[in-house]
Amino acid sequence: MQETCLFTPGPLSLSSDVKDAMRVDLGSRDETFKQVTQRVRDRLLHISGTDKSHSAVLMQGSGTFALEAALATFLGATDKALVCINGLYGERIARILEKSGKNFETLLCSAALPIDVAAVERIICRDKQFTHLCFVHCETTTGLINPVKSLLEIGRRNGLVTVVDAMSSFGGLRLDDDIDILVSSGNKCIEAPAGVAFAIVSNRLLASGKSSARSFCFDMMDQWQHFEQHREWRTTPPTHIVQAFDKALERLIEEGIPARNARYSRVQEKLLRGMRALGFKTIIPQEHQSPICLAFCSIELVPDEAAFAAYYGALAQQGIYIYAKFHEPTTTFRIGCIGQIQDFWIDKLLAVTAAHFRISPSILAA
Amino acid sequence: MQETCLFTPGPLSLSSDVKDAMRVDLGSRDETFKQVTQRVRDRLLHISGTDKSHSAVLMQGSGTFALEAALATFLGATDKALVCINGLYGERIARILEKSGKNFETLLCSAALPIDVAAVERIICRDKQFTHLCFVHCETTTGLINPVKSLLEIGRRNGLVTVVDAMSSFGGLRLDDDIDILVSSGNKCIEAPAGVAFAIVSNRLLASGKSSARSFCFDMMDQWQHFEQHREWRTTPPTHIVQAFDKALERLIEEGIPARNARYSRVQEKLLRGMRALGFKTIIPQEHQSPICLAFCSIELVPDEAAFAAYYGALAQQGIYIYAKFHEPTTTFRIGCIGQIQDFWIDKLLAVTAAHFRISPSILAA
Ligand SMILES: Cc1ncc(COP(=O)(O)O)c(C=O)c1O
Ligand SMILES: Cc1ncc(COP(=O)(O)O)c(C=O)c1O
Repeated sequence: MQETCLFTPGPLSLSSDVKDAMRVDLGSRDETFKQVTQRVRDRLLHISGTDKSHSAVLMQGSGTFALEAALATFLGATDKALVCINGLYGERIARILEKSGKNFETLLCSAALPIDVAAVERIICRDKQFTHLCFVHCETTTGLINPVKSLLEIGRRNGLVTVVDAMSSFGGLRLDDDIDILVSSGNKCIEAPAGVAFAIVSNRLLASGKSSARSFCFDMMDQWQHFEQHREWRTTPPTHIVQAFDKALERLIEEGIPARNARYSRVQEKLLRGMRALGFKTIIPQEHQSPICLAFCSIELVPDEAAFAAYYGALAQQGIYIYAKFHEPTTTFRIGCIGQIQDFWIDKLLAVTAAHFRISPSILAA
Repeated sequence: MQETCLFTPGPLSLSSDVKDAMRVDLGSRDETFKQVTQRVRDRLLHISGTDKSHSAVLMQGSGTFALEAALATFLGATDKALVCINGLYGERIARILEKSGKNFETLLCSAALPIDVAAVERIICRDKQFTHLCFVHCETTTGLINPVKSLLEIGRRNGLVTVVDAMSSFGGLRLDDDIDILVSSGNKCIEAPAGVAFAIVSNRLLASGKSSARSFCFDMMDQWQHFEQHREWRTTPPTHIVQAFDKALERLIEEGIPARNARYSRVQEKLLRGMRALGFKTIIPQEHQSPICLAFCSIELVPDEAAFAAYYGALAQQGIYIYAKFHEPTTTFRIGCIGQIQDFWIDKLLAVTAAHFRISPSILAA
């Protein structure tokens, strides 16, 4: 099989030692595997700098599974959440709350701009029933970074529990702020295979012992207590994925978040320079742009879904995979900058793009 | 790292080509991966012989996740389930229903005997409110096979929706009967890594379009519709696991269920002969014994948890892993017969067992 060059914001291209970790069969209830589980939990706290204040609760499944579990467990019947939305993943939070019959309101913001901090403050001050503030750190729809510091500050000032979806940013961007519940997943900046997600939850919330979950699998309190008491998962863990997750965290700690961020930024800059030369625009202000992924737009070259499908297909034929979906509301497509992207893959992506749109590649050399 | 010899009823020892399938990074929204997903769904129907009548709905997470999703989706507010229990996994079904506030009753049977079919019939005939009948096919607590044909027949006669947990039996035992909802997981007789589970649901239930799920992730109707319409998972699938799952299904189809069953039976017979020679007993009648796993008992050699821990440790030190938990109610421990168990592993297991209990190994040669 041809090597695949993934430019997708998770799942992404893994390093070969992370893949090697999936070759070992461990017993899911054996001491060796318990140690892997505990190490993953410890490493997550270490990376987030929350060793003293928080605890890591792992959850099998995709990132959304950990998000739903956290909301199911820590948002009670008398609680009310404000969900700030400026993209697909903010919408996802609202959808989860809606399906589970939780009490919430949404603040809808433009997808091209950060969440409107002043509007958040106004809404919260007007309605004293709010108990939780939910938002996405890096909105992967556009690659935009939301103003996490200001939002957390508002949450704190108003005594709200803060819930941050840091799915696509954890491990790639520093997050030094005190977040009550941070949710993320292994298959983005941690560079592990998909299949395990987690929440980093403040000990204050965990110590209460209170769970609102009306679900066995998504009871994060029960899952946490089990990890603490038995160092085990309640139901069968995806052992191979957890082992790879552990190896990926080891590599992240060795590299460090700043260096990883710089690596992603180099990919991003090279992509940005090349794609701009070819005539593509970005839609969000540069100061809010993350090095996680880029949303590109060109009404001339990629006016619609059909044009995108043709472009996507041309890249895929050469083993280059960008995110496969066109985002209608912003007429953009996404290219991820994370994972084990090699420098020559970027050259290839740009060359295939130029060829597909019949643009002279000499423009890239300029 | 030393080779691990897993005698665990899932996760288990994988073949090396199944592991190789985890080395390829695919885009989770790409056509290639969509084809893998569709192939897995098709192969599951093919194996269960339900191509015409049922549809396969995959779910990321462990087997319990698919079980909870199926119950959340297909058991409505006015429904009532009878849960037949003769081991830990029957209890698990009841626990899921309890946590999610569903209406149900339990029938508790002895762990050493099959579910009492006559009692099931009596309960159902007495109370016309029952709409669902739930039970475990192979109760992995003891390795006992429940009387699936008779139970399904009662369900059918009384117009109940039948829900069968075939977690540890699917792929290893033939199941020719018409089951409305069969739930299983990749990491048992399919011999795939853990991380993906599934339900095989009758088209009659799916065609209704009705979902009772108060969960985004566990809405199996939504998940199914998405598979049908887009050939995609709603949230990020564990791509590497799905690829390995696909390869494992290919191998299962090549081998065939009868040959796989015979392979497991050979492991089981050899284990049974050896362990009996060493003084261990089984607790269930031979005619109800599955070739999936064996529960062994010896009040002299392994009277309690501490004695089991010492024995488990002696085996583990030699790279042999049996199921790590002692089952107090039946004073048994379990040895799995499934997965890529090599013949010489069994010899080693028996030899280490003899040595640990200071029994002359010559007894094994007899
Ligand atoms: C910010 C954000 N939130 C949530 C999700 C959903 O995660 P998953 O698809 O793993 O369930 C994603 C996935 O890309 C994401 O980027
Ligand atoms: C019969 C049965 N049901 C349910 C389960 C639970 O599956 P999981 O641990 O994958 O959630 C198991 C696990 O061994 C099982 O054997």
